[in-house]
Amino acid sequence: MPADAPPSSDVPKLDLLVVAAHPDDAELSVGGTILKHLAAGKAVGVVDLTDGEPTPHGDPETRARETAAASEALGLTWRHNLGLKNRHLEDDHAARAALATVFRLTRPDIVLGHAPTDTHPDHVRAARLTADARFWAKLTKTDLAGQPWSERGGLPGEPFLPPKLYHFWSVHLREIPTPSFCVDITGHLEQKLAAIRCYESQLTTGRATAFPTLFDDIETRARYWGWATHVTHAEPLGSGESVGVGDLFHLN
Amino acid sequence: MPADAPPSSDVPKLDLLVVAAHPDDAELSVGGTILKHLAAGKAVGVVDLTDGEPTPHGDPETRARETAAASEALGLTWRHNLGLKNRHLEDDHAARAALATVFRLTRPDIVLGHAPTDTHPDHVRAARLTADARFWAKLTKTDLAGQPWSERGGLPGEPFLPPKLYHFWSVHLREIPTPSFCVDITGHLEQKLAAIRCYESQLTTGRATAFPTLFDDIETRARYWGWATHVTHAEPLGSGESVGVGDLFHLN
Amino acid sequence: MPADAPPSSDVPKLDLLVVAAHPDDAELSVGGTILKHLAAGKAVGVVDLTDGEPTPHGDPETRARETAAASEALGLTWRHNLGLKNRHLEDDHAARAALATVFRLTRPDIVLGHAPTDTHPDHVRAARLTADARFWAKLTKTDLAGQPWSERGGLPGEPFLPPKLYHFWSVHLREIPTPSFCVDITGHLEQKLAAIRCYESQLTTGRATAFPTLFDDIETRARYWGWATHVTHAEPLGSGESVGVGDLFHLN
Amino acid sequence: MPADAPPSSDVPKLDLLVVAAHPDDAELSVGGTILKHLAAGKAVGVVDLTDGEPTPHGDPETRARETAAASEALGLTWRHNLGLKNRHLEDDHAARAALATVFRLTRPDIVLGHAPTDTHPDHVRAARLTADARFWAKLTKTDLAGQPWSERGGLPGEPFLPPKLYHFWSVHLREIPTPSFCVDITGHLEQKLAAIRCYESQLTTGRATAFPTLFDDIETRARYWGWATHVTHAEPLGSGESVGVGDLFHLN
Amino acid sequence: MPADAPPSSDVPKLDLLVVAAHPDDAELSVGGTILKHLAAGKAVGVVDLTDGEPTPHGDPETRARETAAASEALGLTWRHNLGLKNRHLEDDHAARAALATVFRLTRPDIVLGHAPTDTHPDHVRAARLTADARFWAKLTKTDLAGQPWSERGGLPGEPFLPPKLYHFWSVHLREIPTPSFCVDITGHLEQKLAAIRCYESQLTTGRATAFPTLFDDIETRARYWGWATHVTHAEPLGSGESVGVGDLFHLN
Amino acid sequence: MPADAPPSSDVPKLDLLVVAAHPDDAELSVGGTILKHLAAGKAVGVVDLTDGEPTPHGDPETRARETAAASEALGLTWRHNLGLKNRHLEDDHAARAALATVFRLTRPDIVLGHAPTDTHPDHVRAARLTADARFWAKLTKTDLAGQPWSERGGLPGEPFLPPKLYHFWSVHLREIPTPSFCVDITGHLEQKLAAIRCYESQLTTGRATAFPTLFDDIETRARYWGWATHVTHAEPLGSGESVGVGDLFHLN
Repeated sequence: MPADAPPSSDVPKLDLLVVAAHPDDAELSVGGTILKHLAAGKAVGVVDLTDGEPTPHGDPETRARETAAASEALGLTWRHNLGLKNRHLEDDHAARAALATVFRLTRPDIVLGHAPTDTHPDHVRAARLTADARFWAKLTKTDLAGQPWSERGGLPGEPFLPPKLYHFWSVHLREIPTPSFCVDITGHLEQKLAAIRCYESQLTTGRATAFPTLFDDIETRARYWGWATHVTHAEPLGSGESVGVGDLFHLN
Repeated sequence: MPADAPPSSDVPKLDLLVVAAHPDDAELSVGGTILKHLAAGKAVGVVDLTDGEPTPHGDPETRARETAAASEALGLTWRHNLGLKNRHLEDDHAARAALATVFRLTRPDIVLGHAPTDTHPDHVRAARLTADARFWAKLTKTDLAGQPWSERGGLPGEPFLPPKLYHFWSVHLREIPTPSFCVDITGHLEQKLAAIRCYESQLTTGRATAFPTLFDDIETRARYWGWATHVTHAEPLGSGESVGVGDLFHLN
Repeated sequence: MPADAPPSSDVPKLDLLVVAAHPDDAELSVGGTILKHLAAGKAVGVVDLTDGEPTPHGDPETRARETAAASEALGLTWRHNLGLKNRHLEDDHAARAALATVFRLTRPDIVLGHAPTDTHPDHVRAARLTADARFWAKLTKTDLAGQPWSERGGLPGEPFLPPKLYHFWSVHLREIPTPSFCVDITGHLEQKLAAIRCYESQLTTGRATAFPTLFDDIETRARYWGWATHVTHAEPLGSGESVGVGDLFHLN
Repeated sequence: MPADAPPSSDVPKLDLLVVAAHPDDAELSVGGTILKHLAAGKAVGVVDLTDGEPTPHGDPETRARETAAASEALGLTWRHNLGLKNRHLEDDHAARAALATVFRLTRPDIVLGHAPTDTHPDHVRAARLTADARFWAKLTKTDLAGQPWSERGGLPGEPFLPPKLYHFWSVHLREIPTPSFCVDITGHLEQKLAAIRCYESQLTTGRATAFPTLFDDIETRARYWGWATHVTHAEPLGSGESVGVGDLFHLN
Repeated sequence: MPADAPPSSDVPKLDLLVVAAHPDDAELSVGGTILKHLAAGKAVGVVDLTDGEPTPHGDPETRARETAAASEALGLTWRHNLGLKNRHLEDDHAARAALATVFRLTRPDIVLGHAPTDTHPDHVRAARLTADARFWAKLTKTDLAGQPWSERGGLPGEPFLPPKLYHFWSVHLREIPTPSFCVDITGHLEQKLAAIRCYESQLTTGRATAFPTLFDDIETRARYWGWATHVTHAEPLGSGESVGVGDLFHLN
Repeated sequence: MPADAPPSSDVPKLDLLVVAAHPDDAELSVGGTILKHLAAGKAVGVVDLTDGEPTPHGDPETRARETAAASEALGLTWRHNLGLKNRHLEDDHAARAALATVFRLTRPDIVLGHAPTDTHPDHVRAARLTADARFWAKLTKTDLAGQPWSERGGLPGEPFLPPKLYHFWSVHLREIPTPSFCVDITGHLEQKLAAIRCYESQLTTGRATAFPTLFDDIETRARYWGWATHVTHAEPLGSGESVGVGDLFHLN
């Protein structure tokens, strides 16, 4: 099954869209940011690039069920799996066109994607793919011969460049991030953990249960970044561009 | 005349306080940020550490008159001159106590001070002095022998640590800042320039009138940082700590 | 039509060669540097990797005509279009061999290429392609089976490694560059703007005419970097290696 | 009472010496590193520059008693209070000579001192004082008129430059450190916390008891740096020079 | 001949494995580190990704003979050539699977690979390939259809993630490294040079014999990094993660 | 004897002025740069801030004799000792006024001073003093009561801001510099070493004679930076501002 974007009729306008290599990456890295903005009334979606399988304790059906449960635990506005090939993710033209289509249909104000440094090859490609697809989403005349998805009549929807792209760090590389800013997720950590626990095949089965578990470490990092920014819990994000703010009292 | 803080009865609670080495430094570096927050209804003050004299075309009376005009052009809530010695600014204990007292009396949520790197010796000291006075403002038992201003009965007011300290860059060092964020000052540039023009003895008299004038360059930099953060005009600020934000849609 | 290098007989020895992803990138980023060195009697060329089409208001013929006009406005020694595929630029072996051939034939002392960070996928690939083709240009025995362009008898010309490669920043990513140095282009800005204006289909048609226009911003950035380096106008360049200088009085 | 070094007869040769601005700084920042090296049989000492008073809930006698208890809880080889003036710490010549004397008498292979960036004025001065006293410790002819402590017959002991100086971060500035390396303190966190709890007047009295307490945050940071370096708990250290290692298998 | 991993029966467990793009890269960059650890009784291997040919003065047979001589001069535990295509190295799935297999069979505690920045296209790809193959080495279910080397029954050996990956700098890019640490190779430089001299076709034939020769520069750099870390000779290494250490006295 | 500037009648206009904490610092750090510019016909001077004594094997007379010999070996246009107190160098107002006077009298286009990071307390102060005195050199009305050297009738000469200030690294801190640029000193190393050898009491007497000697290391570093910038020998310099260049062919 080739990578594919959803049919246009299926897709709501989003405020915030998270692009994740595998189901559970969005929850692990920015679950709190998702919840914070949903609580503020924003429309928040996730596009998973692959199904994340095979894994030692998972299979596609289990993973899909766990993903659905996590989406419900978060209360996501919309979620879609792009069907790209796990372990073999590439920033090729087909993948780029498929993700660009998602951007054109969901028209998010803000996209969150993987950081460009990671130990997971798929995450590194996801970072590049997300940046490139963002640019492709604004192309015109995509139906000309040889242009993106011209064989399908060009990219659906209207040209659109998502105004903001920030990146999140995943847990594979224990690099110390120098975040551009941290998002205050105080009050949302429990629900973030609840969503993550839905991925039982990935994060619980066969894992050590003594301190520090993977769940302990999610709490540690949330508290570390919260400590660093004078709130209870936070998640770090990076930006390739300078960050602007209209009101200093919006920062904490 | 020794450095001195204002009498307590004279001082309003402030939201934002700018600490500047010389009159005109606040206007030049963060005039737009001041105006933006005044327009939003915040109480904004400036404490000038010295009177900035002598200068080639100024004298204390002229400078005071120009400062008053600039304060009015900005619409400042409060302004005070700490009476420290221009060209000889030092982060000594008397200066630190005097500025700490200003912090305790004005109780600002946010302090803006000079960046630690600059070519002007007074600016470098002002940066250190501001950081240290901020810490001293929260000291207790300052009336014990040998403690800050014990000879005056200790620091006035209640212990208070201004929660945020950001720094601004002045024009002496043509270092390329790597700002932590930029403040959108779109719509406030004209009024900023009007306030700056009040310092005629400093910024107009005896200066070249051909492009690029000092005023041209203020516009250039405001536009450069605006361009960098997708607004019309902006001012860059730095932070020694990570920056937190509660809502991604507050960033531009 | 496959990517191709020019016939050997067509190519002069160059002092400075700019490698740009699309026609207009060279002018926008380093138009002043080109003019400055032409004025100093250097032989300066541009190789455009693609024709830059399709775009909303352009077509290949218009673009070629505009490019010719811009080349004439600059007074370029030589310009060539490598015929690679716009929007699909890749650092593949055919492209690398074609560009390496240009390096071997023009034998530039200095190459200017795209910076490795950008939002435009083609610019990111152009940066990688330029760096890699520079290395390939010095390969020997390229006519052996399986070697670069062995099907054409190997890379034309003699092995040659362009001694210097610097990179320029384009306008897509509003990253604040930390340039290795800035080139003083004082006195050349008007002619740079004149050359840029030749790309009417790209930079004028359908664009906003209110401040700040794209042309206003080119002036702003030229002045910003001029201000930073104590001249009127300048363009920033980066280097992956340390920069050496023989005479301190050559720096400004 | 002027700053003073201990009498020579009182001082053992040390392997590791921690220089801290106030009692409790050593424990808070590098308590685990102290314990780790004591457990490995090293001689480890602490020199507190001041008595840390006044504080809201402390007094000199209480503080001295708490410090003694903490020293015992750590099992320190040696501890000394240099008697410099809290809140007014300066890198003046008397302080520098006194600390240099401690270095000459204890002859530590490694000194740990405050990081140069901090919000606490005393910490910033302690960093500078430690670096400068380290250099002064190797001076000769200190008994000549006008030389360090010439009025006391010059610096006691033989000239000695402590070979290594690393710095630790304290909790006042919530800067994200970029450590040169982290010390694995796995197995020593409980005892570190026990030592810290001895400073009841500083760290318990009058403090909030709800999560996150100061003790919670010490655990969080220890786990964060442990997570980052693949051990259970760790403490970050910085170095102004490159770090060398003889055996890659000594790193974790 | 496709890229290939060695047969399982041929491969010892290694402590340290160097992954080099071409024969001689391992010797040039980390020859001293190899010797230091062999002398300490560690099992050290090298996997060369390509045969490095063609070169101006070499051919595959000569190169193989020189490589064998260098391996003997070093006293390597094991060496293997992966047979990837010189000048055309790519981080494709076949290469990744082949190198991942080497990791699974040798199970090194530490892998040393190329730094991600270099002027040599093969070195840049080798850096990416090494990082990605390290991750792939821990994959499970690699025998499922479409998974790594499923056509060969999946990746041989047990899933294994080499715990540490450090990178070395080669001589092509004269970038000033900011090493995470330097390895003390004092006492091993002569033998390193002896091993390097085995590559006569690469490093002696046709090269200038006046100062500074390539061999002079190897000595210069070894001394520079030794000087920087207070030993006689050293080699710099980088790490994408923070470095941990158990005992401060293991650092120099 | 108080710090003092030379009498006006004694001082030539200089192109390049090196400000060094102690005699031999100028030679050790930028001896090649001095020679290079003297050879190009520039007027080059050195101001030593202190006499550098006491040292283990020196005394003021010997040091003065060695300094004179070194000055002659370099062929310096001018040299002056400011008479500040070695080991106790401070950026106080008297020192600042004295050095500012030197700047006003010599009117150098370029000043070279110590880098702000070093292990030697005097070097750190020299860096700050040089930066501050540079700014003070342009002050007006210095004869007003309380202004710089008003007791002497104000600063001699006309107000003057040396246009450029670059910094050099000394050998005390084995920090890896990230130079803004390196100066090609090819052909001048032997004469640099000859000048350095004049400081026999400092650099030869009582020093180890086995490799690597201090002289070996000077050669190593000169070659390292030469290697890094594609020349034979070089010296690194830093700049607090961006560096501008008029002609790319002036860089190597």
